Amino acid sequence: MTYSVKFLPYNVSVEVDDKESLIRAAMDAGVHINASCGGGGVCGKCRVLIEEGMVEGGISEHLSREDQEKGYRLACMSEIVSDLVVRIPVESEIETSRLNVHAGNRHTAKIMYSNIDELRKDGMFAPPVEKIYLELDSATVEDNQADVARIINYLRLKHDEHRLTMGLALIRKVSDILREGDFKVTVTIVRPVRKDGQNEIVNIEPFDTRDRNFAIAVDIGTTTVFGQVLDLQTGEVLAQQGEFNSQISYGEDVISRIIFAEKADGLDILHQRVIDTINKILGMIIKKAGIGKHEVTTITLAGNSTMTQLLLKINPSYIRRDPYVPASIMYPPFHASEIGIDLADHTIALIFPGVSSYVGGDIIAGIMASGIYRTDKLTLYMDIGTNAEIAIGHKEWMVCTAASAGPAFEGGGVKFGMRAIKGAIEDFSINPETYEPMIITVGNKKAKGICGSGLITLAAKLLETGVIDSRGRFNRTLGTPRIRQTDDIWEYVIVYKENTQIDRDIAITEPDLDNLIRAKGAMYGAVLTLLEEIGLTINDLERIILAGGFGSYVDLESAITIGLLPEIEPDKVTYLGNGSLLGCKINSLTNALRRDVAKVVNMMTNFELASTPSYMDHYMGALFMPHTNLDYFPKVKARLERLHK
Amino acid sequence: MTYSVKFLPYNVSVEVDDKESLIRAAMDAGVHINASCGGGGVCGKCRVLIEEGMVEGGISEHLSREDQEKGYRLACMSEIVSDLVVRIPVESEIETSRLNVHAGNRHTAKIMYSNIDELRKDGMFAPPVEKIYLELDSATVEDNQADVARIINYLRLKHDEHRLTMGLALIRKVSDILREGDFKVTVTIVRPVRKDGQNEIVNIEPFDTRDRNFAIAVDIGTTTVFGQVLDLQTGEVLAQQGEFNSQISYGEDVISRIIFAEKADGLDILHQRVIDTINKILGMIIKKAGIGKHEVTTITLAGNSTMTQLLLKINPSYIRRDPYVPASIMYPPFHASEIGIDLADHTIALIFPGVSSYVGGDIIAGIMASGIYRTDKLTLYMDIGTNAEIAIGHKEWMVCTAASAGPAFEGGGVKFGMRAIKGAIEDFSINPETYEPMIITVGNKKAKGICGSGLITLAAKLLETGVIDSRGRFNRTLGTPRIRQTDDIWEYVIVYKENTQIDRDIAITEPDLDNLIRAKGAMYGAVLTLLEEIGLTINDLERIILAGGFGSYVDLESAITIGLLPEIEPDKVTYLGNGSLLGCKINSLTNALRRDVAKVVNMMTNFELASTPSYMDHYMGALFMPHTNLDYFPKVKARLERLHK
Repeated sequence: MTYSVKFLPYNVSVEVDDKESLIRAAMDAGVHINASCGGGGVCGKCRVLIEEGMVEGGISEHLSREDQEKGYRLACMSEIVSDLVVRIPVESEIETSRLNVHAGNRHTAKIMYSNIDELRKDGMFAPPVEKIYLELDSATVEDNQADVARIINYLRLKHDEHRLTMGLALIRKVSDILREGDFKVTVTIVRPVRKDGQNEIVNIEPFDTRDRNFAIAVDIGTTTVFGQVLDLQTGEVLAQQGEFNSQISYGEDVISRIIFAEKADGLDILHQRVIDTINKILGMIIKKAGIGKHEVTTITLAGNSTMTQLLLKINPSYIRRDPYVPASIMYPPFHASEIGIDLADHTIALIFPGVSSYVGGDIIAGIMASGIYRTDKLTLYMDIGTNAEIAIGHKEWMVCTAASAGPAFEGGGVKFGMRAIKGAIEDFSINPETYEPMIITVGNKKAKGICGSGLITLAAKLLETGVIDSRGRFNRTLGTPRIRQTDDIWEYVIVYKENTQIDRDIAITEPDLDNLIRAKGAMYGAVLTLLEEIGLTINDLERIILAGGFGSYVDLESAITIGLLPEIEPDKVTYLGNGSLLGCKINSLTNALRRDVAKVVNMMTNFELASTPSYMDHYMGALFMPHTNLDYFPKVKARLERLHK
Repeated sequence: MTYSVKFLPYNVSVEVDDKESLIRAAMDAGVHINASCGGGGVCGKCRVLIEEGMVEGGISEHLSREDQEKGYRLACMSEIVSDLVVRIPVESEIETSRLNVHAGNRHTAKIMYSNIDELRKDGMFAPPVEKIYLELDSATVEDNQADVARIINYLRLKHDEHRLTMGLALIRKVSDILREGDFKVTVTIVRPVRKDGQNEIVNIEPFDTRDRNFAIAVDIGTTTVFGQVLDLQTGEVLAQQGEFNSQISYGEDVISRIIFAEKADGLDILHQRVIDTINKILGMIIKKAGIGKHEVTTITLAGNSTMTQLLLKINPSYIRRDPYVPASIMYPPFHASEIGIDLADHTIALIFPGVSSYVGGDIIAGIMASGIYRTDKLTLYMDIGTNAEIAIGHKEWMVCTAASAGPAFEGGGVKFGMRAIKGAIEDFSINPETYEPMIITVGNKKAKGICGSGLITLAAKLLETGVIDSRGRFNRTLGTPRIRQTDDIWEYVIVYKENTQIDRDIAITEPDLDNLIRAKGAMYGAVLTLLEEIGLTINDLERIILAGGFGSYVDLESAITIGLLPEIEPDKVTYLGNGSLLGCKINSLTNALRRDVAKVVNMMTNFELASTPSYMDHYMGALFMPHTNLDYFPKVKARLERLHK
């Protein structure tokens, strides 16, 4: 159910979901309300008047009984349960024309083959691991062919299955299983990537078990590991769970993990840690889904090249050393239990292939999930993080690269930076006349710090209101106490300590902005470099796909304003969410993806920025917000001129 | 060097090798010399006069100085070192016309592709596991493809190698090996059976190791395991060794092994025992050959279906139970170390496929080695033993069966039966007038017992001289003390106790002959049954191939005389020796055999005698020597009539 909320005196409306908080609705509408605590009614500043309709909550000691009776509520504590007309008390004369209206609701990607019905319709719903039920003739003296031969011959004759093989471990069990099931059995077959490859029978169960056939998809992030259980009959996600990658105590980023892996036992330890994390998740999601371990036929895993090598216990040392060589980009299917994954012996593990040391299986999974390789449209695929991976192309060709952006997008190198967990400032607005802030935190808790997407919005809003210039320097002349110098460093105070969880003023500093600019410069510079290498320009891009946890939360307009993303129509930008997990999911449902992925990996040209001379120029040019060359950002340029006039 | 030896007064000559013993030369010439101790000058009866030429040895206390000076020697102690004319002292008037002349020297099989030069000439010398040397470009930032991809791409471009895969265990080592060898490495590739199958890279070594490439062939007999080391550059056998299968303490035959395997831990124990035996042999032959374990790229193993399943730790229970179903007839290649074979992790084990529970990989190996499947000639292939396996066919089709002959051929169920080890009576002649024996033992030692091939010759000679009738009953009226009744059982004393190692008279009894007749009846009956099932007769056979240790030693004419083998010209019979080991050897040298063997196994029709009604009639008809129907044996019939007239 959705409601319409109209904000007066600006006469701006927004559609919101049932129970949405009123302050988030205001932020979405681009309406500024002074609100500097993050929610929970702490500061009491976000007073609004409900003129029509009703909200739940919003009552606070900060409001007098009289005000309450008039209809005043605290926006941060009010849940929307009807259409509303809300008046913002005018504390200063801001022209409505100066409001920044948001890009609108974030939309999720249209993902090819993301649901089973589409796959079924296209005849593509054929998982890499399938079950077939057989009613065999019992053995007699007249027909006493070997047990394995009986199965293979039947599959050949009745199911047109060829090039079948079976491993020793299963052959050991076949005779007893056949007799347990009175020669009625279900076989599990792993499909080959190449059409003329071998079909390996990996399991045989007595009787008909086709309706108990499940897959697991796992995204192994440097920070977080996500797993989900899929029903291979329906394509449904039955359970999912994310956990911190417990390698994290040996280093936050891939480089420090590699350095640790180079120590004695380091590789074994990191391998075991990620396996432990995966097993922990498996335990939870298998229980939640109500299935048995032995009913899982396949597990697809994707991670960056370092995560993949650590998962497989492959020395990642050469990844970090010039000339940055991964051990392999493709891996054969294997039995998950071989690397310690706590699944049945017959469960097959499929590893997403990568392209290079810094464009790994997680990116390829996302690219496959997004379907870029099937479209005509020139698409820019970006996974923004400490290491930003970028791919450009369409069904004819594809190029990729990775840029080291530094940790700013994940809250690192930022004085009050933090992950996007409860209390992190994730959205921000500023009164262009009083320079008072409005903040929204994850979970509506008192503020603790600033997460990556919050940082970008902060920078954009500060730039738009002239609080900072294009190089991230504060305007020292605005006369607000929030802009100040502490220990020789200029900063803007977002939340005063009494409204925080940390009992310190939360501020954004010039060094923070420097880090952010370098991070976004690295990314934008990489995009320009890639485009130049293939003889195209930024204007040729027809579509942008943003992947990754960060990509899912970043405010599009802010990202364009600071020059992180190329200027493009909002409706040409797609948020993919966790592309890596999505790719694993789709791979679990259709073997066609495995065939395609080999093609994609082979057609992908990888550029190492370190050995691409033009990169340094493009990087330097991008160290301004939005860019040295404002021709790349005509709309931002126009808006900034209008706002600053 | 060979010499000619002429025996007087019979005027019979024979060609013998240098240092052959004179008594064996006489036996080969069909000349009877009373000699009942087995050799070593014990009984002193084999006095002969050297009329021309010279021998070494032969002097004994049994000869007076005067006799020695005249030229008398003991035949059993004389080694032939020149052409000879030897006179046998006439102790009785035997007409030379009544002498049985042997079939002549035993000939070895002409084996297809038994040596590397023939294979090379035909372009077939391409082992299932090959080494290729690569000089790769070192990685640079401009060319930093993944290490595995670098190898695979190079093989694709420079060696036209396709469909390459590599397992996880090797991928883990690739990066370090590449750098250790400065990007000069030797890869080991396992070839597929199907031409369009996958080529698996199983090992990578720094630098050029092509000249260190060895294979191992292993025949796993129920009784004995043989192994040999092959140089894959030259095809030479570098070392070989046989050892008793140490499963033997859990039962002599396959049925008792299966029964043991059905007990708790029984399968594990038998599996471990045969692995221990194999590892013991490997230790010896690898040392003898002067190679390293890691230089062995492949090990090919063949055994009967029970031996194969015990080797692979597969419950053999259903093999012995109606309807006699083996778990599988084909097995995939795997890493030898997986089943505990003490070779490097990269060494690939190839298992010879079988056809049924009682026609196993050992027989198929022999059939492949013999090349039957390539010829036009209708061939009977027999592996004679406790379980006799029989195949008939040529390049167009093939049928097979197995007959349970009982242990008589291996010395079981025979009062003084023993294996063909030192002291076993292996050859026998009888004076047709005095009924005094001439025996030859393995190793020319004092007699201990009778081995299978000796038993057949004994029975044939006793039949020819009328000592027994066609049902194996002794003629009670011959007046020799050697034919006597002991404990109600009639027997013929071959060696009196003073000339034995066992201080007991060694005799052959009527129950012994009964067992022999049943054993040969089972085999011959099986041959007739197979022929009848395919609409042919015994006269259609154009060639016989005898395999197995027993087949290599049996005297052809004796075997025909008792009706064990069909009557056929001696030059149409080929002795293959250990066909199983030979098949493994050839399989190590050419991958073509693996492609062919799949075809052969698929074209082979197996008959279970238990479910073939005509078998019982054929068996009953064969319970006479040579047979109820003497038309099957026209020459034997004629000879017996002549001898008995």
